[in-house]
Amino acid sequence: MTSYIAPLRDYHFILHDFLKISEENLPGFSEFDKEFTKSLLIEAAKIGQEELSPINQQGDQFGCKNDKGIITTPPGFKKAFKKISEGGWPGLDCDPEYGGQGLPLVFSSVVGEIFSSSNMALTMYQGLTHGAYSTIHSHGTLEQKKQYLPKMVSCEWTGTMNLTEPHCGTDLGLMRTKAILQQNQTYRISGQKIFISSGDHDLAENIIHLVLAKIPDSAEGSRGISLFIVPKFLLDEHGIPSTKNNITVGKIEKKMGINGNATCVLNYDEATGYLLGEINCGLKAMFVMMNEARLGVGIQGLGQAEAAFQKALDYAKTRTQGREVGSSKTPSLADPILVHPDIRRSLMDQKSFVEGGRAFSVWIALHLDKGKLALDKESEDLASLLTPVLKAYLTDMGFDMTVKAQQIFGGHGYIEDLGMSQLCRDARIAMIYEGANGIQAIDLVGRKLLANNGKSITNLINIITDFIGSNINDNQLKKNFLIPLELSLTDLKSALEFLMSNGIKDPNIALGGATDFLHLLGNLMLGFMWSQMAKVAYKKTNDSASADDFFLNKLKTGAYYMSNHLPMTNLRLKRLRETSNTIMEINSNELHYFDSNPQ
Amino acid sequence: MTSYIAPLRDYHFILHDFLKISEENLPGFSEFDKEFTKSLLIEAAKIGQEELSPINQQGDQFGCKNDKGIITTPPGFKKAFKKISEGGWPGLDCDPEYGGQGLPLVFSSVVGEIFSSSNMALTMYQGLTHGAYSTIHSHGTLEQKKQYLPKMVSCEWTGTMNLTEPHCGTDLGLMRTKAILQQNQTYRISGQKIFISSGDHDLAENIIHLVLAKIPDSAEGSRGISLFIVPKFLLDEHGIPSTKNNITVGKIEKKMGINGNATCVLNYDEATGYLLGEINCGLKAMFVMMNEARLGVGIQGLGQAEAAFQKALDYAKTRTQGREVGSSKTPSLADPILVHPDIRRSLMDQKSFVEGGRAFSVWIALHLDKGKLALDKESEDLASLLTPVLKAYLTDMGFDMTVKAQQIFGGHGYIEDLGMSQLCRDARIAMIYEGANGIQAIDLVGRKLLANNGKSITNLINIITDFIGSNINDNQLKKNFLIPLELSLTDLKSALEFLMSNGIKDPNIALGGATDFLHLLGNLMLGFMWSQMAKVAYKKTNDSASADDFFLNKLKTGAYYMSNHLPMTNLRLKRLRETSNTIMEINSNELHYFDSNPQ
Repeated sequence: MTSYIAPLRDYHFILHDFLKISEENLPGFSEFDKEFTKSLLIEAAKIGQEELSPINQQGDQFGCKNDKGIITTPPGFKKAFKKISEGGWPGLDCDPEYGGQGLPLVFSSVVGEIFSSSNMALTMYQGLTHGAYSTIHSHGTLEQKKQYLPKMVSCEWTGTMNLTEPHCGTDLGLMRTKAILQQNQTYRISGQKIFISSGDHDLAENIIHLVLAKIPDSAEGSRGISLFIVPKFLLDEHGIPSTKNNITVGKIEKKMGINGNATCVLNYDEATGYLLGEINCGLKAMFVMMNEARLGVGIQGLGQAEAAFQKALDYAKTRTQGREVGSSKTPSLADPILVHPDIRRSLMDQKSFVEGGRAFSVWIALHLDKGKLALDKESEDLASLLTPVLKAYLTDMGFDMTVKAQQIFGGHGYIEDLGMSQLCRDARIAMIYEGANGIQAIDLVGRKLLANNGKSITNLINIITDFIGSNINDNQLKKNFLIPLELSLTDLKSALEFLMSNGIKDPNIALGGATDFLHLLGNLMLGFMWSQMAKVAYKKTNDSASADDFFLNKLKTGAYYMSNHLPMTNLRLKRLRETSNTIMEINSNELHYFDSNPQ
Repeated sequence: MTSYIAPLRDYHFILHDFLKISEENLPGFSEFDKEFTKSLLIEAAKIGQEELSPINQQGDQFGCKNDKGIITTPPGFKKAFKKISEGGWPGLDCDPEYGGQGLPLVFSSVVGEIFSSSNMALTMYQGLTHGAYSTIHSHGTLEQKKQYLPKMVSCEWTGTMNLTEPHCGTDLGLMRTKAILQQNQTYRISGQKIFISSGDHDLAENIIHLVLAKIPDSAEGSRGISLFIVPKFLLDEHGIPSTKNNITVGKIEKKMGINGNATCVLNYDEATGYLLGEINCGLKAMFVMMNEARLGVGIQGLGQAEAAFQKALDYAKTRTQGREVGSSKTPSLADPILVHPDIRRSLMDQKSFVEGGRAFSVWIALHLDKGKLALDKESEDLASLLTPVLKAYLTDMGFDMTVKAQQIFGGHGYIEDLGMSQLCRDARIAMIYEGANGIQAIDLVGRKLLANNGKSITNLINIITDFIGSNINDNQLKKNFLIPLELSLTDLKSALEFLMSNGIKDPNIALGGATDFLHLLGNLMLGFMWSQMAKVAYKKTNDSASADDFFLNKLKTGAYYMSNHLPMTNLRLKRLRETSNTIMEINSNELHYFDSNPQ
């Protein structure tokens, strides 16, 4: 069983052939040529392949241990985490002011995929720290930034986000954790937080918890929530972690996967906290972290699918079973199962998803970079519109593809030995955390579509329409790519029209169709990515000097996506139109409606 | 958290309102009236709800233990298994000659769903025993039947099926296990078998292994395989288990789920075996077991989806989070999440699948009964055609629906506490064992469609066409049911035409589209079931005397299935036509085609 190999060729194709990042007129981007990318990603691949991937399976098997409140991570995690930290990887896109390397998101998203594919549970410790870093960076005082950020950029200290309580997850307005102001302007934080990823562990000297809590007499609901920095160890006057704060680990959750990450119940018992940002603006501040985390989680879905695809492909090449159709060879021997059409179909599903999804994730990262570095509002808005799509579509489909990869192994995929079960179990969480995918759909339909009077979605439709229009004379591209792309774009426009005309009358119609709309848009985006990549690949293959199998295969894989997966947009449109008819005519008091035994 | 409740009302509806079994002109069926069904199923429900379901989660947590080759099942399994055995449940549809109750499959399939929903891992011990019983019943000598069947009917002895070896699963022709004839006409069996469900345990006095092996100098490939009875304990002259046979447990597999079932590596070291059936006809004999098992496994997929749906529905009614759209109530309180359209959509997906899939499974069981009891060849052929569809479609969709149910719990579905992770992990195996679902598709397209010159599929098309034709003047039925049913039937006919005209020229075209064809047909069958059930439900609701919510809800749920799920047949048709274009043009030597790093 070969282990994970970072798909470097594909990253180069996306960064340089497709997105041509070094031609972007953005600060520093002219230096990001192929040489730069190559040396950076080879180093990232080394960390992933040599440090993270080899300990992924033992992370699942050993899990995290809780010895009277002292949490230890699985064997090898400490050493590997130190390597990541020493290599400067956690600070790749962080502010140089605080020790970061100041690189754009296009690189951190690619490195994020490599690390997630290699070891999702371990990479989460770093990912949550980055989210906490960003929140403090956006909302902290200068003093807070100086106190916390340098150590967090290096992951000497890690971070967490504390939102969920036993009775409230999505609906944070129900929160009960209290924050009481003290005379010294600190707060006493009391309450229980659950599902805290990286909540406690032995990888870092200190853990900086960002905790949402209510200051008494604040407004009801989500407008009365504030955000606090609550370190595991309080800092002394030199900024050194010293006194242990009043935070205890209630337990580590037993869960389906990501066992290498300690998901904790944390009990705050008059713990000392410091206000981060404005009073009662906690949710807004936390959204910095959540938005960033959604990009990261989408990439986790992609990363698990890529890792699973690689294993499945390797297995299909080496496992021999049955003979190729038409083979007259002796029946007591067998061919690699890759000769069987049904296996190929499944591998094509996986390959066309991961390569399309990867392009989508880097494309969004580039738009975020443009928004940040060139203050390009249009790009920022596009990224904001598509962030929930990326999160939910790549994790829903990423999980499905991981299951498909597991299926290729037959019974060998169900037992734990070859790691396929773990990839599925790990991938499953990405559909749930950082806002369950249904919530992403509601965010898209209820908020993002309507933002700026719908400018962003109109802009997106124009971009795709322009792409089709300006390439319609390219006959190679037209048949396999532009025609199906246009059909799906028409589905999107019809869906949008339906939502706009009916959703305003009755929001339940829009909300009932939200998931189908999100999937329609995600599906279309991958089709758009494939169409753009195909344009590049046709150019390369027509130019015999640069022709190689890589580009030919891109064209075949893209054509498969366009013919076999993209037409799903039409079914999504149908569902979106139909769903609310059936589901909302039932009065919400008729809770027994769904029962099989109503008598 | 309420636990599983058997959907008795739905069974009554299917058995009596839809299929009207007591009006079937089959031996004994006139006695199977509502009273009979009620008393039988209430007892089955009691066993499921009170004995099996309460120990399901601990079965997962404790798993099976291997103490130097002595295998023990999880706490409570022994007691519950004894209850099943004492209640006569394992012999429900077995031959009264050997202690069975001789009831038809319509009842054992329903009871099978109840038991699988309650505790899939435990029910497997019984299920495999039944398969071994059937194989001995069909192929054994009178003496073998007398020796083994009475104890297997009661599950005092259990059974297994031994096919897989480390290097061969699907391709049994590669088998290496040897059977050497001894002077006393017994055989010495030597070899290693893996993935043996219920392979060893403490639930029964003896385990009757059915083992496929090769007699030296037999034909190559699958035509040289024979089947043997290899008991864990050899029987003495009184038929009492005495000497331990030379079979050892290599290990219990660590796997994703069904941890309550001991999946064993079994090492046969000159173990004593007895030929079952003819020499070199082992595969044919084993197919009796496999065909029966496929019905059972399809029902497992359904059963896990039903159990998960019940839990999700209960959670949606009790978990409060957010407010109903338009509610002006105070934001610090919340409504049950069932008020949210996206939650309802997911529940409707689940409900419309389990109720349609349940009807399909009982419908097939009835056709098998007709084949067996009335020697109705047409019914038997229909069941044979649709058995791979039932197995693969209900397990693929059953798993998806279980994942959907888990999603409703958010983070609470990912941790192990509420049992949702287990339902997903358990459901996953059903897509793999008894022939992975890709193999079912190949069986359907490569064998079942072609059997009897395609008579069965033509017959099925005629049945559906007749149903549409004879009800087309029913305006209520027409709009929501018959029109979409006819569209999907047209998709089926087009798909069939495509396969027939292209698959003969190039089998790879048919094989590449096999999974899509299977799903198309499965999807259509559920649409056909819903249409027939809707006809009944309209009649009931129009007749005010029998109108109640149950029938109204059937109509709503059915309409949802027809509008939101059935149109998927059209995408399946598209894929089926397109897949082979892309996937087979690659020479099978180009194994690197799928790589992302071909350089």
